[in-house]
Amino acid sequence: MTDNAVASRTPLTLLGTGDMGTALARAWLAAKHPVTVWNRTPSRAEPLAAEGATIARTAAEAVAANRLVVACLLDDASVGETLDGADLAGRDLVNLTTGTPGEGRSRAAWAAARGARFLDGGIMAVPPMIGAPESGGYVFYSGSPELFAEHRDTLAVPAGTRYVGADPGFAALHDVALLSAMTGMFAGVTHAFALIRPEDIAPKDFAPLLVDWLTAMAPAVHQTADQLESGDYARNVVSNLAMQVAGNATLLRTAEEQRVSPELLTPYMALMERRLAQGHGGEDGTGIIELLDLRAGASS
Amino acid sequence: MTDNAVASRTPLTLLGTGDMGTALARAWLAAKHPVTVWNRTPSRAEPLAAEGATIARTAAEAVAANRLVVACLLDDASVGETLDGADLAGRDLVNLTTGTPGEGRSRAAWAAARGARFLDGGIMAVPPMIGAPESGGYVFYSGSPELFAEHRDTLAVPAGTRYVGADPGFAALHDVALLSAMTGMFAGVTHAFALIRPEDIAPKDFAPLLVDWLTAMAPAVHQTADQLESGDYARNVVSNLAMQVAGNATLLRTAEEQRVSPELLTPYMALMERRLAQGHGGEDGTGIIELLDLRAGASS
Repeated sequence: MTDNAVASRTPLTLLGTGDMGTALARAWLAAKHPVTVWNRTPSRAEPLAAEGATIARTAAEAVAANRLVVACLLDDASVGETLDGADLAGRDLVNLTTGTPGEGRSRAAWAAARGARFLDGGIMAVPPMIGAPESGGYVFYSGSPELFAEHRDTLAVPAGTRYVGADPGFAALHDVALLSAMTGMFAGVTHAFALIRPEDIAPKDFAPLLVDWLTAMAPAVHQTADQLESGDYARNVVSNLAMQVAGNATLLRTAEEQRVSPELLTPYMALMERRLAQGHGGEDGTGIIELLDLRAGASS
Repeated sequence: MTDNAVASRTPLTLLGTGDMGTALARAWLAAKHPVTVWNRTPSRAEPLAAEGATIARTAAEAVAANRLVVACLLDDASVGETLDGADLAGRDLVNLTTGTPGEGRSRAAWAAARGARFLDGGIMAVPPMIGAPESGGYVFYSGSPELFAEHRDTLAVPAGTRYVGADPGFAALHDVALLSAMTGMFAGVTHAFALIRPEDIAPKDFAPLLVDWLTAMAPAVHQTADQLESGDYARNVVSNLAMQVAGNATLLRTAEEQRVSPELLTPYMALMERRLAQGHGGEDGTGIIELLDLRAGASS
């Protein structure tokens, strides 16, 4: 690598050196980006100095050092507090702090009022996956398309990038939606392991069957999307709600036999029954999405 | 194919020609197995005669026709009623009727008392996947290992086979455990789609992200199995309960912003908080399995 190549790497500032911020800083430093770091508790930033980072004494000083400023802080309120005394005019602020879509949107307006371009990010990875492209971790980005276009190569250094729109709330929304779906999957997995736990079945023999089954069933999501796009929730139905509700009885009787609380499954089963009772027995599960809608005038 | 090869295919009896039974019969007929069928409502069995099946007038007559007898009926009670007047002595009864582990075990004892070998099955497929090896559908079997060994080639004709033990309850238990996990996954998917539904995000753009994410996260099941085998629920933890509970707050605030009921996620989140409050913040989710245990003296 020539000195010119190194010199051409975009310098950046990173605010927040918790586990995730430290992993991000290390990935950029390893790729020869000049990195200025700041952390509220300075001792947590100091180890990065040995790896080549410049330590700023204040957040304002860190922001002044580089046009590209990445924030990876505790929560959205910390972003506002940290940047309170900093001059953001002409800065490109990339917010990787975990938050809601609404926080992403209001933070975008706040940044615009201070003269900064803004990109919100949702990190779909844990710290060990940062800087490890083979891990499959990536970051959702939304907000300024110009900022993303200009910095995408730099942003791609720690993890893959997926730009999901100009709406600065979309990165958090995609992030939270995927984590919510995963939460449901893990709840189901918990129930499954609870069922086999009293028996002479090795968890290590059961696990591959479970992984294969969930992997084989996940693509049913495409059918749901197709029905939502068409508005026809009975389109291409194989196992309809009437059949599924009948099948649920076997799941519940098995839980009872195995002395496993059904509490992780019953809320979804109750919505299946409600949708069925509303006369939608020929659909599969897509219509249940509407039953979760709390907006006034929702069609449930 | 020679006449001898055809003649060597095991003849069998199939009781019950609903959608699944009909799909099974067609797969065996297509593979040149002589098939005798019976159905409570004879008109539902008749179309199979044109495809080469022999129609029996009574269940007892159907059972008398072949040593290998496959039952695919409405429920376990139907199996008892259907076979009430049949002579099962020396028969090999394969029960593909949906049921619980307890029903599989009591039906095995019932069959043994009547002089029949018994195998219970749990079908991990919908009818269109039967006779289509590329679909990935398969059947869990448990019970008589001799019966399975003798008939495994015949049983493998409609779908793949997975023998999971001599305990006749294990096929149903594996079946129900996987369906329960899938139910949780679909509940999570329902919440995820509800979150994006109010926004200008095409379900067809969101679906592949969701499928990829669930597929990438499903192997976390191996970590759960490893912790269960070792008894060390804090082993190799990356994202611990304390961090997960903090993250749940963002999921719930997002649901509130999007006006989506959190009812499909909150039961699992409540158990996470309960386990955390019990002092297990350094674990990930494995310990929650114990909280579902309703047996007296359970360790929660």
